[in-house]
Amino acid sequence: MTIGIGLLGLGTVGAGVAEILTSPGGRHPLVAELELRRIAVRDPNRPRPVALPPELLSTDPEEVVNDPSVEIVVEVMGGLEPARSLILAAIAAGKSVVTANKAVIARHGEEIADAAARQGVYVLIEAAVGGGIPIIEPLKQSLGGNRIQRVSGIINGTTNYILSRMTDEGAAYTEVLAEAQKLGYAEADPAADVGGHDAADKIAILAGLAYGGSVERSLIPTVGISDLQARDVSYASQLGYRVKLLAVAQHLGTAADGSECLDVRVHPTLVPSDHPLAVVNGVNNAILVEGDPVGRVMFYGPGAGAGPTASAVVADILNIAGIRQMGGTGGGLDPLLAASRWRRCSLVETSRTSHRNYVRLQTSDQAGVIGRIGSCFGHEDVSIQSIVQLEASGGQAEIVVITHEVEEARFQAALAAIQALSGVQSVAACLRTL
Amino acid sequence: MTIGIGLLGLGTVGAGVAEILTSPGGRHPLVAELELRRIAVRDPNRPRPVALPPELLSTDPEEVVNDPSVEIVVEVMGGLEPARSLILAAIAAGKSVVTANKAVIARHGEEIADAAARQGVYVLIEAAVGGGIPIIEPLKQSLGGNRIQRVSGIINGTTNYILSRMTDEGAAYTEVLAEAQKLGYAEADPAADVGGHDAADKIAILAGLAYGGSVERSLIPTVGISDLQARDVSYASQLGYRVKLLAVAQHLGTAADGSECLDVRVHPTLVPSDHPLAVVNGVNNAILVEGDPVGRVMFYGPGAGAGPTASAVVADILNIAGIRQMGGTGGGLDPLLAASRWRRCSLVETSRTSHRNYVRLQTSDQAGVIGRIGSCFGHEDVSIQSIVQLEASGGQAEIVVITHEVEEARFQAALAAIQALSGVQSVAACLRTL
Repeated sequence: MTIGIGLLGLGTVGAGVAEILTSPGGRHPLVAELELRRIAVRDPNRPRPVALPPELLSTDPEEVVNDPSVEIVVEVMGGLEPARSLILAAIAAGKSVVTANKAVIARHGEEIADAAARQGVYVLIEAAVGGGIPIIEPLKQSLGGNRIQRVSGIINGTTNYILSRMTDEGAAYTEVLAEAQKLGYAEADPAADVGGHDAADKIAILAGLAYGGSVERSLIPTVGISDLQARDVSYASQLGYRVKLLAVAQHLGTAADGSECLDVRVHPTLVPSDHPLAVVNGVNNAILVEGDPVGRVMFYGPGAGAGPTASAVVADILNIAGIRQMGGTGGGLDPLLAASRWRRCSLVETSRTSHRNYVRLQTSDQAGVIGRIGSCFGHEDVSIQSIVQLEASGGQAEIVVITHEVEEARFQAALAAIQALSGVQSVAACLRTL
Repeated sequence: MTIGIGLLGLGTVGAGVAEILTSPGGRHPLVAELELRRIAVRDPNRPRPVALPPELLSTDPEEVVNDPSVEIVVEVMGGLEPARSLILAAIAAGKSVVTANKAVIARHGEEIADAAARQGVYVLIEAAVGGGIPIIEPLKQSLGGNRIQRVSGIINGTTNYILSRMTDEGAAYTEVLAEAQKLGYAEADPAADVGGHDAADKIAILAGLAYGGSVERSLIPTVGISDLQARDVSYASQLGYRVKLLAVAQHLGTAADGSECLDVRVHPTLVPSDHPLAVVNGVNNAILVEGDPVGRVMFYGPGAGAGPTASAVVADILNIAGIRQMGGTGGGLDPLLAASRWRRCSLVETSRTSHRNYVRLQTSDQAGVIGRIGSCFGHEDVSIQSIVQLEASGGQAEIVVITHEVEEARFQAALAAIQALSGVQSVAACLRTL
């Protein structure tokens, strides 16, 4: 039974999908049942890496959505609009949708999921997080027996590439960014990546799946890597850590009103060198899921690129096609694959969350400074793992403190007191630590 | 709609499954729809870590299989018989089966799959490989768009624990084994683990899923770690490698008769220190899948234990329950989840496979020995990456050679010529290298 596929977009990912669908040999036999029937492109005359019958191409995406021979609509055009409207139009036409569009899902996921549930169709998003890494389906279909405690990931390849090179070469951020742009690992406008916003989109999606409830994307505290200094990357290495841009969604408990309290955030983080995430380098991504009773499982692989992303898109198409092949399904949806929301989730205010911290202070090189800093932390009940004077010259010194886990409000109170100390010039850097 | 579950076995994994099913709070809401209805145990009076109504227990496993209120039969008793017969009886009764039994699936998978296909039921086996790591479902449901080139894994926790300690402490195999047994990481009779047979069971299963055809379990070349010497682990470290027991299934091509030619094997292997599998330590498992176009993806986590294995068993139960929730399926099976065989696979004779190799030779400490060894390799067209004299004392020397990739037949011919050289006492060790 052949299944008709419509593509919205034929850029690098779209072409990668077309490449798989038009060369089924050696792949799962179900791939041979998928037939590309209509493809929306901006410019039909542009040369493409994959040969397709020209009559499949259209400049009108509505034609793809409304083509009665198209049963599954694949949105790989990117951007918020018209992607969102076309996804909703496809759902309204009773079609299941596969999309790689993390920005749309992170911002309009609830609207889209509600529409899909009403129409009894699937919206699958494996390619939206982690490129080719199977993470969405495993979270939905393989870890449902668990109480998920934490999802933490390196889910932006551009920043991981930059941080890996800063660590290996001791290079400065701006220098590595310029080279990453030259090599095509960073975009001309890198703001979404280096600002952490892409990672925030993705952790919003992962949190929704792990905890069964939407989190408000705009409320996720997000710190990128553009202010990160080579000096802190180097000090972290000396202390046995690697700096990674982590996106984290952590379960803190259940509120009196029954909603799940989550700490969801994106920030550069010191990761102990022997931690599984510490060895994830270059443009690779990895997502660590911690749950009861599974313990820690990690998913690792290429976080971007035409081939990996196309692999994830085709996985979703196959999942929908597999259900079609069963020959009618009593009208219902598979609740694992549909991944409806079944809980309310709310983000806990940052001041009430707890973390370990790395702090770099610029001080005068005087006896007693370390003691006074220690006392400020002690006064706020902030327990210290290590306090080290790392450089001293010309009467100036740099002191690095790593704390144990502490509530953010108490940590900030201690920092304020330290900043007011005579002998302390500034809090030069402050990073979270795993 | 509640779904009735029957358990065959209430050992550590069975109790872990019961623990999840009887405490659904905080897990996927579908867990609350699963009801334990009958449990086969050997001794109903044995104390259990989980409280269950005594009327659910029975000493007759047939009662579980034939209980009309049981819709999914979960086999966690282990061993070949009566597990195989009970799985077949459950299938004959029209019930889907979830099993953690790698030995049964590796040896009787085809018979069981055929019976399941005839009856239109599922047999799911996530827990059979990699403990809590989602690897079976991702291979079946998330990577189907790929041509799989290679699956390689650390899929036996006991041997990885032993090898990790041998590497870290320079300790001898027998010493670490004894301690692993004391700590419960190795069984009193460790033969299945240290002989590589458990890993061979598991790679047979993974190969069947990755390539869509059964491989003959009894033909898989299997070398364990019991003959591995601390000296080779230490030399490997010096040369930038870690020794791991790898199970590998590699696609070599398609034969004239259309069957897929595979190289499937288990052996201690030198893995470059910067390879993702090199950093997998202790009782953890990891499976690396290489495919076109996804590239390299890796799945990492706890390879054994009650909690992780129970997580995998419940994942399978949920997948079957999810399909039930759709309300009738036109009688067909989801071809991805059912994972039928669609290709013929055959194992290529070892002599015709190609590998990199590590060889340790005991020689006299004479000028010219290295040259003569090099010439023997050269004569058989074996290209050498490095040849190093590592120790010399009392007129004796040890020489370690690492080759580039070479056909096994040529490599063995070169080794035979080297053994016949005057000045060479013995080939003291010979290991594969990634």
